[in-house]
Amino acid sequence: MRGADSAVRSPFVTAYNYVSFLTDYGLEDGFVAACHGAVARIAPAAQVIDITHLVPPGDVRRGAAVLAQTVGYLPPAVHVAVVDPGVGTVRRAIAVAAGESIVVGPDNGLLSWAVAGLGGARLAVQLTNGELWLHPVSATFHGRDIFMPVAAHLAAGTKLTDVGDEISTDELVELPAPTSRVHDGEAEGEVMSVDRFGNVQLSIPAADVGLLGIGIGSPVVVRCGRRQLTVPYLDTFAAGAPGEIVAFTDSAGLISLAINAGDAAQQLGLPPGAHVRLSQAHTATARPH
Amino acid sequence: MRGADSAVRSPFVTAYNYVSFLTDYGLEDGFVAACHGAVARIAPAAQVIDITHLVPPGDVRRGAAVLAQTVGYLPPAVHVAVVDPGVGTVRRAIAVAAGESIVVGPDNGLLSWAVAGLGGARLAVQLTNGELWLHPVSATFHGRDIFMPVAAHLAAGTKLTDVGDEISTDELVELPAPTSRVHDGEAEGEVMSVDRFGNVQLSIPAADVGLLGIGIGSPVVVRCGRRQLTVPYLDTFAAGAPGEIVAFTDSAGLISLAINAGDAAQQLGLPPGAHVRLSQAHTATARPH
Amino acid sequence: MRGADSAVRSPFVTAYNYVSFLTDYGLEDGFVAACHGAVARIAPAAQVIDITHLVPPGDVRRGAAVLAQTVGYLPPAVHVAVVDPGVGTVRRAIAVAAGESIVVGPDNGLLSWAVAGLGGARLAVQLTNGELWLHPVSATFHGRDIFMPVAAHLAAGTKLTDVGDEISTDELVELPAPTSRVHDGEAEGEVMSVDRFGNVQLSIPAADVGLLGIGIGSPVVVRCGRRQLTVPYLDTFAAGAPGEIVAFTDSAGLISLAINAGDAAQQLGLPPGAHVRLSQAHTATARPH
Repeated sequence: MRGADSAVRSPFVTAYNYVSFLTDYGLEDGFVAACHGAVARIAPAAQVIDITHLVPPGDVRRGAAVLAQTVGYLPPAVHVAVVDPGVGTVRRAIAVAAGESIVVGPDNGLLSWAVAGLGGARLAVQLTNGELWLHPVSATFHGRDIFMPVAAHLAAGTKLTDVGDEISTDELVELPAPTSRVHDGEAEGEVMSVDRFGNVQLSIPAADVGLLGIGIGSPVVVRCGRRQLTVPYLDTFAAGAPGEIVAFTDSAGLISLAINAGDAAQQLGLPPGAHVRLSQAHTATARPH
Repeated sequence: MRGADSAVRSPFVTAYNYVSFLTDYGLEDGFVAACHGAVARIAPAAQVIDITHLVPPGDVRRGAAVLAQTVGYLPPAVHVAVVDPGVGTVRRAIAVAAGESIVVGPDNGLLSWAVAGLGGARLAVQLTNGELWLHPVSATFHGRDIFMPVAAHLAAGTKLTDVGDEISTDELVELPAPTSRVHDGEAEGEVMSVDRFGNVQLSIPAADVGLLGIGIGSPVVVRCGRRQLTVPYLDTFAAGAPGEIVAFTDSAGLISLAINAGDAAQQLGLPPGAHVRLSQAHTATARPH
Repeated sequence: MRGADSAVRSPFVTAYNYVSFLTDYGLEDGFVAACHGAVARIAPAAQVIDITHLVPPGDVRRGAAVLAQTVGYLPPAVHVAVVDPGVGTVRRAIAVAAGESIVVGPDNGLLSWAVAGLGGARLAVQLTNGELWLHPVSATFHGRDIFMPVAAHLAAGTKLTDVGDEISTDELVELPAPTSRVHDGEAEGEVMSVDRFGNVQLSIPAADVGLLGIGIGSPVVVRCGRRQLTVPYLDTFAAGAPGEIVAFTDSAGLISLAINAGDAAQQLGLPPGAHVRLSQAHTATARPH
């Protein structure tokens, strides 16, 4: 097997040892395996790294977030992502060179955050070279019939410009970035995701909290809707007392809310997309009495 | 690693680069990994492609359907399937050459649709060569102790006729094929499966609907039990209006019912096995009044 | 690819073709893939065998049981396990040579049963060589930033003594072994786990039941709490009549309770940890009347 570093990393002619794969196909059918089959047949030297196949059906925003938070930890690869509620309609199928990788999928914004995180689009093509597809092409399963066969050809060394027609990188569909801003002494954002542990990841970078003058060990005020609570900002959720809600910087560099040995999302009732504001806790003013 | 095409494809002496694997073992235990271990130890050059391990426990019919709809998209391989409610009893363990592949599992019908789809059984053996098994053989985990070790030996080049005694291909247990027939202006079938998106796959091939003179864009009458509804027959579910039930040809070439951005199985209350009839929609006759 | 047997098996200098991986990370995020990325980048010739990622969050005892019951069926490997409710706190990160393998994870007892099953700890080190880690190291995701990068370096041939400081194997945290003893004509134990089929695995080895003089085909009395039932001790659950509760020796050599084509755990109400006693069934004494 070729070493990860031996391939020439150019969008124009290269080969890849890895194909990563993210979808909303679930794990109960043979859909994912049928897609793996394309790599096995076309690029047998490449290995598939499954990112997840449990993106909630059709949730492009969630797929985009998981993809963007993962690709930076993988070797240069052809990254294939398919969360594609518009499959079979007019949305374009694309491949985009970004950093040392190529990202392949529907042009519905799913790829946009990952492309940005990899350094931005260097070159984009619309997948129009049907010679690389699996025929007959189904109307509803482009992962098997178009995206993975094309990705496998790219992994095997086909030039990016040979899988379709070049399109302007300015025309690619981009998802609106998650809300995140600092103003009037508050860091404002939204719930990005809730993980298996019930940890609530916010779109607020740890750096923004630093701008507010809130340091590790300090209390932070969390406002969501009409509710308000003050929690400690700690190194990690495990530093909290059992049952205590804490804020910490998570593994993606974002502020998260968690309960040591508990489910913060459930207790706080914070679903993805919910609006959250953080601010410095001030000494309580004594009430007149 | 050997190229996928370099192996000699004969059931009598060959080697395989891929072992595919389908079970009802679930993903919460180490069962699947223990089986992967057999391939790693015996056939380290072969790769395992997991089809699914979430077949509902003991559901041979569902396992057979997923296996049959997937193997055609994989390279020539030793396909191992274990949904085996009779493990440890008198049911036979078998390996069957079909097309360029070998299919391994219990002789309870699980393999029969895949074998047929691969071109029919060319040669069948009962697994009786205990020298290839992992000892002591447990009474309840033949995937780990018999099926995967034998499959790994086959992948590593052991002759099919060396893993057991040849049996007549006529004696293999076959699952009754899903109901599907065209008569009296109706295409009749059953619900094959419901996927993660709630799409309802029928056992009715798109060709049967064509025989009825129903073309893309036409309405089709769906009858299940006492209920009847008329839905458009479209290229793909995504062509339907949000919330609209549509019929389309799915990625297996079968008619499916779906709701764009919704769950058709839930809304229609159609479980696997339910009887469904399709017919052409005629212009409604005006009621006398 | 190197053969599984070609590597020199010494804890001091060796290389491994396989990295096994068990966590409680779940499959819905990109966490597992980010860890796979470390192996792909650092040890591209090694393959990852996923054991499970569905250990209930923070359930160290369950993780330890699955790991211990699986590693014996895998080739010599770097076995990585991360169920780590104390991540980011003072618990140590360790690598332990046992048998021909190295086991890597938090020093919270998770590894202890697997290490014992592999033959006991031969050498242990605390992971202190930060040059092998992924920087910046997050406070909460040591699987990605410490454990898998170190495991990948070990797989690639780094000496065990180069990943950290040697510590006494006597100091390693050990989980209390599951209760299991024979006394007063009873075999006493606890529920180890419940699998996907609802089979209830006890901590009672089949040998203990043999010591009580209970043979295959005999009835066995099961006592849990105030309840008592008499069930047949059979070769396998499939030998039971449909709906009948049976005892059998499972694939790990332990007594399990099951219902053929049913869910014994649900019917018996036996969760992991529940206390269970088994004894020989005696002929009922006729009641005076």
